[in-house]
Amino acid sequence: MDLDLSTGVGELTARLVDVPSVSGDEAPLADAIESVLGSLPHLTLHRDGNAIVARTELGRTQRVVLAGHIDTVPIADNVPSTISGGVLYGCGSADMKAGVAVQLKLAASVSEPVMDVTYVFYDCEEIVSDRNGLGRLSRQSPDRLASDFAILLEPTDGVVEGGCQGTMRAEVTVRGERAHSARSWLGRNAIHDAGDVLEVLRGYQPRQPVVDSLTYREGLNAVAIGGGVAGNVIPDECLVTVNFRFAPDLSADAAADHLRDVFGRWDVTIVDEAGGARPGLQHPAAASFVAAMGGTPRAKLGWTDVARFDALGIPAVNFGPGDPMLAHTRGEHVWISDIEACEAKMAAWLSG
Amino acid sequence: MDLDLSTGVGELTARLVDVPSVSGDEAPLADAIESVLGSLPHLTLHRDGNAIVARTELGRTQRVVLAGHIDTVPIADNVPSTISGGVLYGCGSADMKAGVAVQLKLAASVSEPVMDVTYVFYDCEEIVSDRNGLGRLSRQSPDRLASDFAILLEPTDGVVEGGCQGTMRAEVTVRGERAHSARSWLGRNAIHDAGDVLEVLRGYQPRQPVVDSLTYREGLNAVAIGGGVAGNVIPDECLVTVNFRFAPDLSADAAADHLRDVFGRWDVTIVDEAGGARPGLQHPAAASFVAAMGGTPRAKLGWTDVARFDALGIPAVNFGPGDPMLAHTRGEHVWISDIEACEAKMAAWLSG
Repeated sequence: MDLDLSTGVGELTARLVDVPSVSGDEAPLADAIESVLGSLPHLTLHRDGNAIVARTELGRTQRVVLAGHIDTVPIADNVPSTISGGVLYGCGSADMKAGVAVQLKLAASVSEPVMDVTYVFYDCEEIVSDRNGLGRLSRQSPDRLASDFAILLEPTDGVVEGGCQGTMRAEVTVRGERAHSARSWLGRNAIHDAGDVLEVLRGYQPRQPVVDSLTYREGLNAVAIGGGVAGNVIPDECLVTVNFRFAPDLSADAAADHLRDVFGRWDVTIVDEAGGARPGLQHPAAASFVAAMGGTPRAKLGWTDVARFDALGIPAVNFGPGDPMLAHTRGEHVWISDIEACEAKMAAWLSG
Repeated sequence: MDLDLSTGVGELTARLVDVPSVSGDEAPLADAIESVLGSLPHLTLHRDGNAIVARTELGRTQRVVLAGHIDTVPIADNVPSTISGGVLYGCGSADMKAGVAVQLKLAASVSEPVMDVTYVFYDCEEIVSDRNGLGRLSRQSPDRLASDFAILLEPTDGVVEGGCQGTMRAEVTVRGERAHSARSWLGRNAIHDAGDVLEVLRGYQPRQPVVDSLTYREGLNAVAIGGGVAGNVIPDECLVTVNFRFAPDLSADAAADHLRDVFGRWDVTIVDEAGGARPGLQHPAAASFVAAMGGTPRAKLGWTDVARFDALGIPAVNFGPGDPMLAHTRGEHVWISDIEACEAKMAAWLSG
């Protein structure tokens, strides 16, 4: 299949939606992107699996990355796309084929940007982290992502969302002693004692720190609880799984130390962790980007792939067309005028 | 296989252990019991599945039931039985083939008891309640169990344990509102709110009421807790399963009302219930039994099948050889001298 980059960005988005690319099955779409970008003389291409990196090599003093994932969650009777009243409906329309369409349009139309640009199209963002195409590139060929600043074109409703918070899950284990429930005083009820863990959570005062001028908002919450041996047994163990969302001024190691401190009375096991990303808005490229996009940037509270840039020492923001609340919904859609506005502002910024 | 009721009660217990009778597979043992009791002219027999009811019909003014289950938990490399130093080892030795051996010996040897006696041998006590043979008899032919007083020969270490406490399980459901855990303040965490349920449990003051001169000890405990949607979601439901052990001065209905009152702020669903049994120690037959057995009777805190007699209006106690703490253990055993003492005291009591 062929993509035509001379069509409008709305029509291009529709075309991208019509090429199914559920995580793991991105090859046809990656082929089409490789083919159409390969015909552009001002770009050099590299393909890694179903990820494609296209670069201008103009010798500019600064380089910016524009990145987007090309996969979607499973289709929910919403492919092919439909357009009605200026709104494009379909799987991945907002998350994030509109952003990918903007990337492709910019790659084709802005042949002499004021900064060198690296366009990254990657696979497997919607599934388990260790298959993530951007993660793979950052581990295996971080030089291909080298840049001064990165923009992830995930849907942000056209507002710059800086950096992202880290996330960590930990298991807090409360231990007791089993007994027959008809003689409960012979044991120690671990579920009852888990009340102390819940008290700690309920009394926890999350920080709202300002990082690089953006205000983050942390949170510490139980996301699971489990305990019980049998209907007639005083349980000897209760496990509370907590999720800590931490601002990007805290490293993952520091976040783990904090959890061990908060739950110092119990066994704490860190189950998974992903550090956050500072927004880096003080960087000249970032500052000019924010100014060009307009509006007041806000902190990104959820974890996103911008953290993978942060891990490489590259400040990064989230910015793209579409409402993030519509992602993964059957009725996912995006206003074509929003995609057009995003393309226009970014083209103007890249053109200087 | 044949049973010889002229052997000593220890040897008879060993013989019973050597006839495997895991719940559901009691037929060979039931056949043997039916056969040996059928040869005794002073007893009239009735068989219902693998339950056997044998009665004296002497026209006495009082009738007592001696009941025991003939099934065991699954064998754990502990059949056939072994005897060492006066101790009999084997599956079901304490729970409760020693008690069954006492029943059989009494049935054979006390042909003219001062009270009429109904010997009940029943199946499927160690599994789900609705298969219980005593329950089946009490539903289908309660007249066969009619009596003034009942003794369940479960192991009680040779001490009369009066009646039993009731047991009830209820699910207390705490509801909240889902949200993404990066924006937890948009939701309401049901696990955190379940802390209030645990506070109620921890602050609960159980009663220790005196019923028919015995002191019971109630208990209200969480036996299970569960909640959680996903690692990044504020959970909207947490379910706490509580087990209420209540003294026999409280009906099951009154116990349910009490739980609904204690957990009035939440949804309460009664999952299962089994009323307790009053000890009825003021009844003449019970009083004479306690006096004859000696020792100080105590309240039975765990639920037992005596409650099935209570439901028929028959006061009942637990009394039998063996340590109840050894039941269901691989090393289950019973002192032969304890079985002999039990037989001797009960024979003397029945003989007046």
